[in-house]
Amino acid sequence: MKSRFCRHRSLAVVIVVTFLFATGYAANHEDVRVDGARLNATMGHMKTFGGNAEGGSDRIAFTDHNRIALNYLSGLMADAGMEVHTDFAGNLVGRRPGTDDSLPPLLAGSHIDTVPNGGHYDGIVGVMSAIEVARTLSDQDIELRHALEIAVWTNEEGGKTGSRSMDGSVAASEMDLPSLGEKNLGEGIRFLGGDPDRLAENVRDAGSIAGYVEMHIEQGAILDRERIQIGVVDGIVGIKRWYITVHGFTNHAGTTPMDQRQDALYAASQFVTAVRHIVMDEPGRQVATVGKIEAHPGAPNVIPGRVEASLEIRDLSMDKVDLLFGRIENAAHAIGDDTGTTFDFRHYYTSPAASSDPRISGLVEDSANRLGLSNMHMPSGAGHDAQSFKDIAPLGMIFVPSRDGISHAPSEFTAPEDITNGANVLLHTLIGMDSAL
Amino acid sequence: MKSRFCRHRSLAVVIVVTFLFATGYAANHEDVRVDGARLNATMGHMKTFGGNAEGGSDRIAFTDHNRIALNYLSGLMADAGMEVHTDFAGNLVGRRPGTDDSLPPLLAGSHIDTVPNGGHYDGIVGVMSAIEVARTLSDQDIELRHALEIAVWTNEEGGKTGSRSMDGSVAASEMDLPSLGEKNLGEGIRFLGGDPDRLAENVRDAGSIAGYVEMHIEQGAILDRERIQIGVVDGIVGIKRWYITVHGFTNHAGTTPMDQRQDALYAASQFVTAVRHIVMDEPGRQVATVGKIEAHPGAPNVIPGRVEASLEIRDLSMDKVDLLFGRIENAAHAIGDDTGTTFDFRHYYTSPAASSDPRISGLVEDSANRLGLSNMHMPSGAGHDAQSFKDIAPLGMIFVPSRDGISHAPSEFTAPEDITNGANVLLHTLIGMDSAL
Repeated sequence: MKSRFCRHRSLAVVIVVTFLFATGYAANHEDVRVDGARLNATMGHMKTFGGNAEGGSDRIAFTDHNRIALNYLSGLMADAGMEVHTDFAGNLVGRRPGTDDSLPPLLAGSHIDTVPNGGHYDGIVGVMSAIEVARTLSDQDIELRHALEIAVWTNEEGGKTGSRSMDGSVAASEMDLPSLGEKNLGEGIRFLGGDPDRLAENVRDAGSIAGYVEMHIEQGAILDRERIQIGVVDGIVGIKRWYITVHGFTNHAGTTPMDQRQDALYAASQFVTAVRHIVMDEPGRQVATVGKIEAHPGAPNVIPGRVEASLEIRDLSMDKVDLLFGRIENAAHAIGDDTGTTFDFRHYYTSPAASSDPRISGLVEDSANRLGLSNMHMPSGAGHDAQSFKDIAPLGMIFVPSRDGISHAPSEFTAPEDITNGANVLLHTLIGMDSAL
Repeated sequence: MKSRFCRHRSLAVVIVVTFLFATGYAANHEDVRVDGARLNATMGHMKTFGGNAEGGSDRIAFTDHNRIALNYLSGLMADAGMEVHTDFAGNLVGRRPGTDDSLPPLLAGSHIDTVPNGGHYDGIVGVMSAIEVARTLSDQDIELRHALEIAVWTNEEGGKTGSRSMDGSVAASEMDLPSLGEKNLGEGIRFLGGDPDRLAENVRDAGSIAGYVEMHIEQGAILDRERIQIGVVDGIVGIKRWYITVHGFTNHAGTTPMDQRQDALYAASQFVTAVRHIVMDEPGRQVATVGKIEAHPGAPNVIPGRVEASLEIRDLSMDKVDLLFGRIENAAHAIGDDTGTTFDFRHYYTSPAASSDPRISGLVEDSANRLGLSNMHMPSGAGHDAQSFKDIAPLGMIFVPSRDGISHAPSEFTAPEDITNGANVLLHTLIGMDSAL
C-alpha cells in the first residue's frame, strides 16, 4: 500500500508540477501583488525631499534634496536584499541576482529629479514601484532566472544624462553645461558620487540587457479622461524641431497701404494655421506645435519685417514626421509666394522614435488584463529614459493616469490606487519578461 | 497833350492795377520761386549736425547735435530778417511781421530731431523749406498781411512735445519721462533754452493762429511708386491701439492630442488673418496692423497657453476706426468660441484724426497745379506736429516723395528737386493763405 501510495503520490506530484509548468503558473506567480500601502507610504516619504510651500517639488538634479533622496532609496534597495552602487553617471543601481548568471539582467528604472516647482509623481512612481517590486519578490521568495537591476537615472529633466550614459550619447562637452540647479553637469555627477571622466565605462552593448521596462505617469489626459487604468505604451514618439524665420519687409504701419505690405506676421499666422490643418488632415496620433513666436521689430506701429518661430513634429514613425514636414514646408513656400515673404527652416533637433518591443508591450497588456485593469495602447508623446535603450535592449513602458494631464507642476497627481495598479503590472511584466526574454 | 497824355497814363495805371488786383496777380506773386540750390545747400549742411558713419542721423532731441543745429537755424532765420526766440518748450520760433498787426500769424513748421540712426529728411525738409520761403519773401520784398512764424518743434520723435505744448496737452508728469537720448524731457527742454515749469504759457487759443501748414516727406511709397510730385494731405489719420491677450491652456506638446488643445497661438494666428481680411474688405485707405506678438511660455515643446499681441487701426475717420474694431472684436470672439480660447482687448492709446482745412488743402492743390507739379490727395498715415493744431487753427500739409517709402533709417531720401518743388508749393500756399484766411 505504501509503495503504491508513494507511487501515486509521486505521480500526483509529477502531474501537478507538469500542470503548473504547462500553465506557466509557477513562473507567472499570478496571485502575487505588491504592497500598495507600503508603496504609497514611500511615495509620501519622497515628498519630504525637496517638497516646497506651494505643494510642489524642488528636487532638482544635483541638489542636496536629490542626494539625500538617493540615500533613502539606497536604504530601501538594501532592505530588499539588493546590492547597491552608484555608477559613473551618478545613477543609483540596485541589483538582485538571478538564478542563471549567464543571462543578462532585466532592468527597470526611472528618475526622481524634478523640474523646479515640479510635481511628486513624474519619474518617482516608476522608481518607487520598481523598488516595491523588488521588495515584493524578496518577501515572496520569488527567484527570477535573470538578475534584476533597478536604476534611478541621473538628471532626466535636464537631459536624460544618466540613462543616456548607457548608449554612449553623452558628449564630454555636456559636462560643462549648466544644470537646472547651480552646478554644471560634471560637478553634479561628482556630487552624486559619479565620475564624469569615466562615463564611457557606463556604456552597455546591445544584448547586454535582457529587457528594459519603465512605469511612468502619462503626463497627458487621455487615460484620465477615458477613465482607463493602464496605458500600454507602443513606443516613445520621435521628435524633430526647426527654427523658422519668415522674412518680410519692415515698414511704417501708418504709411504703407494694406496691399503693399510684406507682413511677416501675416504670413507666419497663415503658417501656424496650415501646420494644424496639415497635421490633423492625416489619420493618426501625430502632433505638431508652434510654441514660440516673436515678431520683429515688435512695435505696435511697425509692420513686422521678420518673424522667428519654432516648429515641432512628433510621431512614432520618423517617416511620418518627415512626410508631414514636407507638406508643411511646401505650404510655407506657397504662403510666402502669396504674401511676398520667404520662409527659412533650420532643423536643429532630432530625438529618434523608440518603439516598444511587442513582447514587452504584450506582457504589459496581458498583465493588465489578468489583473482586471482596463487598458489601452498609446504612444508616449513625451520623452523618457526608456528611449535611451532603443538600440541596446527590448524596451517597454507602462503608463498610469495623470489627473487632468497636468505635469511639471505642483498639481501633478496620480491616485494611490493607480500607482499600485501600475506597480502590479510592472511586477507581472517583469515576471513575464523573465520567462519570455 | 500833356494833360491828355497824363490822363491817359493815369487811366492806364488804374486799368493795369485794377486788372492785377482782379486776377489776384499782385497777391499771388505767381512767378516767385524759392532758391532751390540754396535750400538744398542748407539741407546738406544740416547733415553735419549728428550725421553718423552709416550715413544716418543721430540728431536725437536734446543732444548737443540738436542744440548746435538750432543755433545754425537761428542764424538762417535772422538772415531772413526774422525776430528769433526760443519758447518755453524749447521750440525755435522766427517771426516775420505782417502789414496788419490785428491779424493772427500764419504758422509753418516741422522738426529737426531724428530717431537714433534716422534719416536726413524726416522733418528737416519742412523746416528748411519754411526758412527758405521766409528768405525768398525777404529777398523779393514780398509783404504779407499776416505775420509769418516759422517754428522748429522740440522732440517730435519722442512725443511731439514742442507742438503739443501749443494745445496744452503736455502733462507735467511727462517732464520726468526719458527722451530718446540721455536726458529726461524736462532736462532736455531746459538744455534747449526752454522752461518746463512755464509750458502752460505756450498754449495758444483757438483762433490765435490764422493757419498752420507743414511740408514733410511722405514716409510712405505712394508718391514714389506713382511718380507723383506733390501729396495734397487731406488730414492726419486717427489711431487707436489695443493690447490683446489670448487665453488658452498651456500644455505638453507631446502628450496633448491635436483635438484636445486650447492653443492660444493657433487662435491668435486666425485673429491676425482676420484683421487683415476685415480691413481689406472695406473700401478706403484704412490700415490695421498686428505688430507685436509673443507666445507664452514660448518654448518649442509647450502649447502656448497665452499670447500677447497688439492691434492698431488708422483712418481719417474715427467712426470707421471704431466700426472696424467692432468687426474685429466680433471675429475674435467667434475664433475664441471655435478654439476654446478667450480674447481680451485693452484699449490704451488714441490719437484723434486731424482733418486738413479744405481751404488750405485747396491752396496746396492749386499751387501745385499752377507750378505744373503732378499731385494727388492722400491721408497722412503717420503722425505729425501739424495734428497738434487741429483744435487751434485751420491746418494743412504738403507731402513730397520718399524714395521707396523708407523713413527712420539712413537710406531715407528725397531728391533735391522734390524738396524744391515742395518748398515752392509751401511758398505759394502761404501766399494764398495770407489772402484767404
